[in-house]
Amino acid sequence: MSSYCYRRYVSRMFQNFGKLQPKSKSERHDQEPGLSCNSHKLMLYNDIIAPSYLGGFHMLPLGLRALEKLTRLVDYEMQAVGGQKIAMTSLAKENVWQKSGRWELAGAELFTLMDRQKHKFCLGPTHEELITNLLSSLSAVSYKQLPIRLYQITRKFRDEMAPKYGLLRGREFEMKDMYTFDTNKETALETYYTLCDAYDRIFDRLGVHYVKASGATGIIGGDLSHEYHYLVDIGQDSILTCDRCCVKMNKELASEDGQLPNSCQLPATECELQERKGIEVGHTFYLGNKYSSIFEATYKNQAGENIEYCMGCYGLGMTRILQAAIEVLSTEHNIRWPRLLAPHQIYIIPKKDGTRGDEYLAQAEHLSDLFTQRPQLRGEVVIDDRMTFTIGRRQIDADRLGYPYIVILGVKAMESTPLYEVIDTAKGQTIFMSKEQLLTFADTIETI
Amino acid sequence: MSSYCYRRYVSRMFQNFGKLQPKSKSERHDQEPGLSCNSHKLMLYNDIIAPSYLGGFHMLPLGLRALEKLTRLVDYEMQAVGGQKIAMTSLAKENVWQKSGRWELAGAELFTLMDRQKHKFCLGPTHEELITNLLSSLSAVSYKQLPIRLYQITRKFRDEMAPKYGLLRGREFEMKDMYTFDTNKETALETYYTLCDAYDRIFDRLGVHYVKASGATGIIGGDLSHEYHYLVDIGQDSILTCDRCCVKMNKELASEDGQLPNSCQLPATECELQERKGIEVGHTFYLGNKYSSIFEATYKNQAGENIEYCMGCYGLGMTRILQAAIEVLSTEHNIRWPRLLAPHQIYIIPKKDGTRGDEYLAQAEHLSDLFTQRPQLRGEVVIDDRMTFTIGRRQIDADRLGYPYIVILGVKAMESTPLYEVIDTAKGQTIFMSKEQLLTFADTIETI
Repeated sequence: MSSYCYRRYVSRMFQNFGKLQPKSKSERHDQEPGLSCNSHKLMLYNDIIAPSYLGGFHMLPLGLRALEKLTRLVDYEMQAVGGQKIAMTSLAKENVWQKSGRWELAGAELFTLMDRQKHKFCLGPTHEELITNLLSSLSAVSYKQLPIRLYQITRKFRDEMAPKYGLLRGREFEMKDMYTFDTNKETALETYYTLCDAYDRIFDRLGVHYVKASGATGIIGGDLSHEYHYLVDIGQDSILTCDRCCVKMNKELASEDGQLPNSCQLPATECELQERKGIEVGHTFYLGNKYSSIFEATYKNQAGENIEYCMGCYGLGMTRILQAAIEVLSTEHNIRWPRLLAPHQIYIIPKKDGTRGDEYLAQAEHLSDLFTQRPQLRGEVVIDDRMTFTIGRRQIDADRLGYPYIVILGVKAMESTPLYEVIDTAKGQTIFMSKEQLLTFADTIETI
Repeated sequence: MSSYCYRRYVSRMFQNFGKLQPKSKSERHDQEPGLSCNSHKLMLYNDIIAPSYLGGFHMLPLGLRALEKLTRLVDYEMQAVGGQKIAMTSLAKENVWQKSGRWELAGAELFTLMDRQKHKFCLGPTHEELITNLLSSLSAVSYKQLPIRLYQITRKFRDEMAPKYGLLRGREFEMKDMYTFDTNKETALETYYTLCDAYDRIFDRLGVHYVKASGATGIIGGDLSHEYHYLVDIGQDSILTCDRCCVKMNKELASEDGQLPNSCQLPATECELQERKGIEVGHTFYLGNKYSSIFEATYKNQAGENIEYCMGCYGLGMTRILQAAIEVLSTEHNIRWPRLLAPHQIYIIPKKDGTRGDEYLAQAEHLSDLFTQRPQLRGEVVIDDRMTFTIGRRQIDADRLGYPYIVILGVKAMESTPLYEVIDTAKGQTIFMSKEQLLTFADTIETI
């Protein structure tokens, strides 16, 4: 697969075609409502995404590379817990959604359409109906084959009343949804906690602070759910947390008089509740037989009887995670990615020099080749070959686009024992490294 | 990424849940029209795909693994020619499609819908409009940044009048579409032939015989296109080929009196035309400024003038390639995949044995671990742990599902110098190998 190693030149990349970035948050350069959100502005003005319609965005090359990395991370963790990947249709027949009663319940949020034979469909905003219907169509699944854990990473559609903040509240977005099928409540809860652990690992690896807020845990024997939130001011949810006790919950769960469910271990006077705005980036849900009962989705137990599956569903807002993480990490003018999701890891800037420019560029290409010989750095290195620009001018672009590591080939790179300036953009640190140190450092860069 | 190496057991895989396969092509087990096609039947009855609605199918785990391999193959070749991957919205605003005149032209084939604000949209069957509109929205793309080659692999929607043959003529399908932007006709044609070469490499690597049929090559200076066909009896197109001259073309291009365009180098009497049915799996098309003119999509030339892009578009029917290849390669009862796309490469069957069954299974697990230590075989090995079944019974399943290599651990595997029976299902060959030979052989298995 050697040609993945071809060199990438900034001059040929689809990024930031000379757009002028608004100087401050208040300065709007677009008619679109909700552009006041910083991540949305940064992603638009740096060609990470592009608008197609209100609430619908194209993922441009840098954005899609980040999304594909997130996809690989999620694939990895889902498959590590026995998840098998599928892809269901986007269109769903009306009668399947009528069966669950959600055709009416979802109401105007459902995009609906008719085909040329006048059959009605909706564009799936989620897939409980289709997957349960699928499982009920299989003949004779034995209890020995359970648990079945199926997931997909596909586009979802929701006709939001007020789409805004770019990918955070869009009408077309990427979601990971897993559906699990177990023999009974006990095994379904094992699945539930296995999946919660997998979610924890995913969010830990992304390295952005998150709050895992409980739904009705421990209160009612019935439904069980957890929500994963990134804390951002523009979030739709209010999350209550207390550092002194275990409370982390969506405010919706507090009773009307402000009284908390009794999962709080402290007397009410000692509980120091804080309310923060959060955007939901994941949720886990124990469903029981809600859908399997409707669709008569059953397996055969040891005695050969048909028993309804005990189900769970587990969602991750893929495009939402991407933008919410950028919202949390970025500065006003510079994008910061979760390090593992940065579209490319290393950005090389060779010095502009009237007489020795070619030597600097050749050395940059040589370095790029050395980096990309390492399998984990294939496709991860770009060379800023805009040799008419100063180092400083190009460094601003690199910083703005959030490349994690900038390697500058300045005068010291031409000395007999060359030294390279390496900038860690997230930390804002600069270190000079010898070639050997630089390559050793490159080996430590983890990619996915 | 070691946990991708976990062992895969057939008993836990989502495949062939005891469905009975129709005994012959004529015996129908389903109400769905068009099931007479062999690949469709094989894919349904072996849980490669599952029906969602007429012309819409879920990709189940085995099918999606094959599709993801095809995706990686295509990504590789597209990026090797400078392709940058994007993902455009599925929904497209009416006014953008009105602009090109295709809202009316596509007619009933377009799935259309209205959002809650009564704005009209279509579900994109292709994306010339959206991409050209996107390029026209960029400010100041310099000629130095060209060519720009953007592609996506996304779901497309087409309300086929008569959906049939499963993925071959569906209403929702995966397509790779690339759009290229060049300075003028000359450079656009360079791009055109570069992309044709990439397509040739893709189809060569898939290893299924294909015909590259010309559109109007060499006849008119105007439009230029090539179609890639797999020859299958159920194909919609009629392809004319002659082994004595260079003619390979869609019959549509022959003039009404059967006269061929003058690309045929032989006198008409010596040309031995054959007509075969083909299914189009790819097309390449030089567009010129057809769309860039409509959308005023321009770049800046050296003099700073705005010049319309010279465009091309390049499609690959991803799900169609998958099924058409299966249609070409399979036998009546056994699926055969293009080797590189087989969902898993190695299928291990340990002998059922009342007293030594556990030893056989343990040896199968040991072999699986040795295989999957090789990076290219991660996730590629499955163990048939259904130990109550005979080897023969399990071998039938493996053969039917088209696993390329079956490794049988029979009595000889228990001898002091173990011998393993290795079956190459495509060739129908059986060889006995020592452990060393088997591992050396495993090293030669190419994956993607």
